[in-house]
Formats: sequence, structure tokens, C-alpha cells
Amino acid sequence: MLLKHGYNDLGIQALLEATGTPKGSFYHHFRDKESFALEVVDQYMRGAHEALDACLGDESLAPLDRVRRFFEMTGQRYRSEGYMGCLLGGLGQELSGISDVFRHKIGECFTQLAERIATCLQEAQARGDLPADSDAIALASLLVDCWEGAALRSRLRCDPAPLDAMLDFYFRSALGACTT
Amino acid sequence: MLLKHGYNDLGIQALLEATGTPKGSFYHHFRDKESFALEVVDQYMRGAHEALDACLGDESLAPLDRVRRFFEMTGQRYRSEGYMGCLLGGLGQELSGISDVFRHKIGECFTQLAERIATCLQEAQARGDLPADSDAIALASLLVDCWEGAALRSRLRCDPAPLDAMLDFYFRSALGACTT
Repeated sequence: MLLKHGYNDLGIQALLEATGTPKGSFYHHFRDKESFALEVVDQYMRGAHEALDACLGDESLAPLDRVRRFFEMTGQRYRSEGYMGCLLGGLGQELSGISDVFRHKIGECFTQLAERIATCLQEAQARGDLPADSDAIALASLLVDCWEGAALRSRLRCDPAPLDAMLDFYFRSALGACTT
Repeated sequence: MLLKHGYNDLGIQALLEATGTPKGSFYHHFRDKESFALEVVDQYMRGAHEALDACLGDESLAPLDRVRRFFEMTGQRYRSEGYMGCLLGGLGQELSGISDVFRHKIGECFTQLAERIATCLQEAQARGDLPADSDAIALASLLVDCWEGAALRSRLRCDPAPLDAMLDFYFRSALGACTT
């Protein structure tokens, strides 16, 4: 519901009714809507870390293929959720102008994702699949950023094509930089 | 205010007070908040088209430099507005799950921007600055998408670096594809 409605359009009452949750239970666990949404972001990130564990830990694939697999799996999740895109991008855009709490929180989530991806890109460098002198954390941040933009466009169009086009361009360019 | 607050957090009363607008004047011009916000998007797009006219029409620059200039100017505007990022990205993320009107509207805006940029990329192709067989509209869409993601990250960090990194990567890759 947070993915679909965003933060401000999501009513706690509607959430309680949709999930059959007594009001008292909700306020036992969460101080307010903000603490609820921050916990949803944490849960979303636990899911992302699990997907990263599965993909980046798959040593049957070359390191760059592991990274690509993570984003492809994420794209499949977007599709299964009806092209609602990325919760981090949604809340980040909606709330960062009015809440430094969310602005810092979401920024930190992207930094975490980029750091894990950078570790895998360094493995690719060690194998000679990426230029040894490229900056793995900068390349990983760029990938996360470009993905977020493509996720917005995919959401607007209810279409996975922008995600696939972005991954094709990124990996062709990253590899191209190595083979030239 | 729409850029900072987003749509649902923006109260009409607060808007009227901040601008000293009588309520009657507002409702004379706008049916409701939705029609107001759609008009703001149109005005935002008029500004974008003017910036495109100025940059893409500057024949003292090579076509790819004209495109890059447009995004650099856009980045300077973000900075002057206190890193609130792009209105299209903000409203697109906040509203596309709950409003097909905004989802289609914002999607159409991105398509328009990509089409204008594609025309300039075709000029670059004609000069041999981009591969003749590349798809100009696909390359332009990709640029717009990646920019939007970088604009989100720039907003979260109040920092222009993600925008500059994205443009560097894109133009190096686009040019690199040509010179290999």
C-alpha cells in the first residue's frame, strides 16, 4: 500500500481495514505513521539484502553477471507488483523535500546497495572484466542511480523496457571501456 | 511549493497564504488542486522547452555539446532551487500509483523531452559523432531516464555530483561506442 499510495495518501485507517489490524495493535508496534513507514523501508532493505546475498553469492556466474542478475530479479519483482517501481525512489521523491529523516534514511539505503554492488565490481576488476583503474564505488552508484530513473519510467509506462534498455547500455558501456 | 512539498502535502490554504492569493481567484482559475498541479506541470514544461530551444539551437556548439549543455543548465537550476530535483520525477513517483491522469501526463512529458533530444542526437549521427546505426530515440530516452535517477540521488544528498557523474558516463559511453 505504501508503494502504491505513497506516504501522504496512505491513511492509517485504510491500512488497518485492509489488513484487519486492530488500531491498538498498530500503535503498540508503531508510534505513528512515520515510524511505521521507516520500518517498512527497513523490511524492504532486508529483502534487497537477501536478493543481493542470493545473486552476488552465486559463484557459478561471473561477477558482472551476478550484478546484472540482481537487477533483473528486481525488475521481475516490479512486474509482479504491477509496475509500482521502487519504494526507495517513491518515498525518496515524495518526502525528501519535507523530511530530513526520510531524506537521510533513503540516501543511506542507496549507499548501502551501492557498496555491496561495488564489492562485486571489484571482483570483476580482479578478473580483468572491468578496467583496473575504474572507481568501483562510483560505477556502482551510477548503476543504482540510472536504475532508479529507469524504474520511474517503467512505472509511468507499466513496461519493463526502460529497465532492460538501461542495463544493456550500462553493461555494454562498462565492458566496452575495458575492451578498448 | 509543489517541488518541495509534493502534491499531497501541499495545502491549498498554505499556498494561498504564501502567495497572497484570494481563495476566489484561485478557484476562478483552477477547478481544484489537480487542475492547478497539471497547469504547474505545463508551465514547468514550457520552461524546459525554452531551455531546449536555447541549448539545442546554439549552432556554435557541436550537437552532443548542445545536449549536454541542456542538462548542465538543468542541474544549475536544481542547485538554485536548493536541490529539490525534478518536478516530473517528484510528481511522477508520488502520484503514478494513484492517478492515471498524472501517470500519463508525466510519461508524456518525458516522451516529449526525449523526442527533442533525439533530433539533436540525429544531427550528431549525421556528423559521425554517434554511430549511424544507433537508435537516437532509444539513446535519448535512456539519457532522460538516467538523468532522473541521478536527480533523485542529487536531491537526497543535496549534491550535484551524481548528475555530473551520470553525464560523464553517458557521453563517454555514447562517444566511446562510436570510436571503437
